[in-house]
Amino acid sequence: MRHTISVLVENKFGVLARVAGMFSGRGYNIDTLNVAPIHDEKTSRMTIVVRGDDKTLDQVVLQLKKLIDVIEVQDFREGESINRELVLIKVKTTPEMRAEVIEFCNIFRAKVVDVHFDSLTIEITGDESKVNKFIQLMEPFGILDLTRTGKIAMPRA
Amino acid sequence: MRHTISVLVENKFGVLARVAGMFSGRGYNIDTLNVAPIHDEKTSRMTIVVRGDDKTLDQVVLQLKKLIDVIEVQDFREGESINRELVLIKVKTTPEMRAEVIEFCNIFRAKVVDVHFDSLTIEITGDESKVNKFIQLMEPFGILDLTRTGKIAMPRA
Repeated sequence: MRHTISVLVENKFGVLARVAGMFSGRGYNIDTLNVAPIHDEKTSRMTIVVRGDDKTLDQVVLQLKKLIDVIEVQDFREGESINRELVLIKVKTTPEMRAEVIEFCNIFRAKVVDVHFDSLTIEITGDESKVNKFIQLMEPFGILDLTRTGKIAMPRA
Repeated sequence: MRHTISVLVENKFGVLARVAGMFSGRGYNIDTLNVAPIHDEKTSRMTIVVRGDDKTLDQVVLQLKKLIDVIEVQDFREGESINRELVLIKVKTTPEMRAEVIEFCNIFRAKVVDVHFDSLTIEITGDESKVNKFIQLMEPFGILDLTRTGKIAMPRA
């Protein structure tokens, strides 16, 4: 099962390396991870998406809570939180194909953020399934470059 | 000076811990970092925002290139790339204030993604200065929760 783990940490030197090391030391491959300061700048939030059985991941969460500079750990199972991610995609376009790509962008409320004679760079946000569907639709045109932020999450309550 | 470093890596176990360890071992605090698979799933892209003088960061980039499982490293100075990030913000709202918060959302093309009697959860994307300006405007209402993905970047060329 996939878990989305949200970790509030002191914005200090070396915390990321310690957290990442804890997952790799236990043989977990992280699907996505992101970390950035929150509004008070002394604190950062990490969002980690990881696969594993519930029991073992419960242990990882317990271990995380014990790490120095870790303030709070939340473990969201699927469907328990608002999830969003952001993707930039550069798609190959011929003059004939450009209109079709833009049509898909409009349907998905994606934005064209850069344009060249033979490519469009597109920004799309949404939950994972929406974003993946859009990427799948862009594949036949030719994806030249792609970068995604990984998921961020917030409790619904 | 701030650098945005984009690192293409094999999607393998332990790469993130090695890269994060390289920065913390040299005393660099990472501002933001994110990592996620690109469209081929065997490869991931990491985007790292870090502060430091150009000379020392050039060295870090050279060291990164030598790491196992690192395929490509690009170092963007400010203004050389398209930059975007995504933020979820939960803002305190009274019935009187709600309309004002929504007005700011419309100006910034931010989206309300969840609503409660006493709060709104908002999604905003953009470059750093736009996102920071919006966060600043939300502060007087009361920010209850905030999570940001950190920057992703793509070359303009």
